[in-house]
Amino acid sequence: MILTVTLNTALDITYRTAALTPHATNRVAEVSERPGGKGINVARVLAALGHESVVTGFVGGRTGDALRELLAAEGPGGQPAHAAVTDAPVTDALVPIAGTTRRTIAVVDETTGDTTQLNEPGPTVTPAEWAAFLTSYEGLAARADAVALCGSLPPGIHVGAYAELVRLARAAGRPVLLDTSGEPLRRGIAARPDLVKPNADELAQLTGSREPLRATRDARRRGGRSVVASLGAAGLLAATPDGSWRAAPPMAVRGNPTGAGDSAVAGLLSGLVERLPWPERLARAVALSAATVLAPAAGEFDREAYADLLPRVAVTEQSSQPEQESHAPRQHR
Amino acid sequence: MILTVTLNTALDITYRTAALTPHATNRVAEVSERPGGKGINVARVLAALGHESVVTGFVGGRTGDALRELLAAEGPGGQPAHAAVTDAPVTDALVPIAGTTRRTIAVVDETTGDTTQLNEPGPTVTPAEWAAFLTSYEGLAARADAVALCGSLPPGIHVGAYAELVRLARAAGRPVLLDTSGEPLRRGIAARPDLVKPNADELAQLTGSREPLRATRDARRRGGRSVVASLGAAGLLAATPDGSWRAAPPMAVRGNPTGAGDSAVAGLLSGLVERLPWPERLARAVALSAATVLAPAAGEFDREAYADLLPRVAVTEQSSQPEQESHAPRQHR
Repeated sequence: MILTVTLNTALDITYRTAALTPHATNRVAEVSERPGGKGINVARVLAALGHESVVTGFVGGRTGDALRELLAAEGPGGQPAHAAVTDAPVTDALVPIAGTTRRTIAVVDETTGDTTQLNEPGPTVTPAEWAAFLTSYEGLAARADAVALCGSLPPGIHVGAYAELVRLARAAGRPVLLDTSGEPLRRGIAARPDLVKPNADELAQLTGSREPLRATRDARRRGGRSVVASLGAAGLLAATPDGSWRAAPPMAVRGNPTGAGDSAVAGLLSGLVERLPWPERLARAVALSAATVLAPAAGEFDREAYADLLPRVAVTEQSSQPEQESHAPRQHR
Repeated sequence: MILTVTLNTALDITYRTAALTPHATNRVAEVSERPGGKGINVARVLAALGHESVVTGFVGGRTGDALRELLAAEGPGGQPAHAAVTDAPVTDALVPIAGTTRRTIAVVDETTGDTTQLNEPGPTVTPAEWAAFLTSYEGLAARADAVALCGSLPPGIHVGAYAELVRLARAAGRPVLLDTSGEPLRRGIAARPDLVKPNADELAQLTGSREPLRATRDARRRGGRSVVASLGAAGLLAATPDGSWRAAPPMAVRGNPTGAGDSAVAGLLSGLVERLPWPERLARAVALSAATVLAPAAGEFDREAYADLLPRVAVTEQSSQPEQESHAPRQHR
């Protein structure tokens, strides 16, 4: 079982409009809702890869009720007819709170395909609720093959929360992945997670460097045992104890990038628990990520595209010396 | 008691953002929710004017539950501390449906003050639900001093629905006001409502004329016993069996125009049941409308501004001959 933590879960609402006109009244043509927050998105992709997962974090209010109901309906038996019936279960271990789960609204402009995102801040979590979560988390982490800590912190949670969760997972002997940003990432990485997956902006904010190879290595020095940076269309760059690699999709893909990073996390986590060599983990993460961009629905991945892309991802080893980066890389796959 | 009908009620959500950037991720700084839909907004203003009102229409799902809970909390005893404690009650006579009440999202850009509105389409109402509503409506209308039919029709409701409701109110001998647009207005006005309150666009769409005096008189010929057009900052233009008037605020007001039209409807309705002469009804409607634009919260009105503006609204009688419009009008107040 893989445990994913989403402290700031969300009811993700998608609005389709003919065209979004700012400072005017826009009629929404179509509304859809689903359980959201990065860890929940990761669990959904893990389920599709056949990995049993448990989601935890906080949930409350009417939007929280809607989230749990939709999450239960997504599981095997409740899933939509178009999904594969072989999905592994996603178990709801969310901790109830007095506050109300936030909404996020993605307004998809059907003329241009562009998305405007509106994210509510989320409910304030009380110290007693955080204490209840920690008790539940320790029990869950002890049973997990891996733990993923994903996304932003809701109001009320101390900025060192991820550092605390990293230490608890490490104390239980469980590999732990951290995917967050800003100060929670800075503090969390110092607690020595097994893997961090920043995007280019998060990495630059953490290290002060916009040069990805230098920045990923700097992030390792800050405490990340392995660092995998997601560089958008350029794919992934990994700095690990076993070496450094770049992994890139065979071609640029166009579509909705929402959830592409979460799919990459699911690829890395599943590869970790399957003990795949790094190049295979990275290829899986890149193929899942690109297949997510290609899927029409935000945050879902196109299974056929994934199968097609997987063998075509180029993984190239990087020189161990940063100053020799321009030397010819070895081709792996 | 005044009965207001809102067939397409809404949970009105307001998001305050530092600045809305299209095609980017926007963090919402502050979220507020309240019961919405034009008839509910009208009832809220009527309550503040001391008129008991009953709201009906459809309500369903989690957003419907939230709407009813917020509506109950708004009443005397439940209202926020800043509101006057003399408000008359608003009674909930909404009819439950299987579908889910829509949301509307107003994104207020705190840099510019501009509002971007996103309106969900609303739930589909079944024929059985419409039949249940009609039974309830007939009973309520028979007890009402006046009836207001407000806003758009949700999916599933036939386009002649307002015409049907106008006829039922008239059969019960109750004065009925219609505030809608498009084909529902065209059909509804033919059923001879006592009053219609189109805005400039709605009036132009109905009559084909952008010349307000000509268009309001045309709207009377189509069946409206009295027609009061809301012309934004220019105030109101009324064509009635007793004469025609223009009513304008003493100065241009800047602010959020959301709900200004609903406040005008409340002013007209309250003036009708109080049997005020037309110039006084129009002055009240204009002052309420301007005081709504001036209030910081969308759809509320600034009570001090209302009291200050009311004696300063200029109401001028219009010539009875459209071709003599340019002649000097008589000053009423």
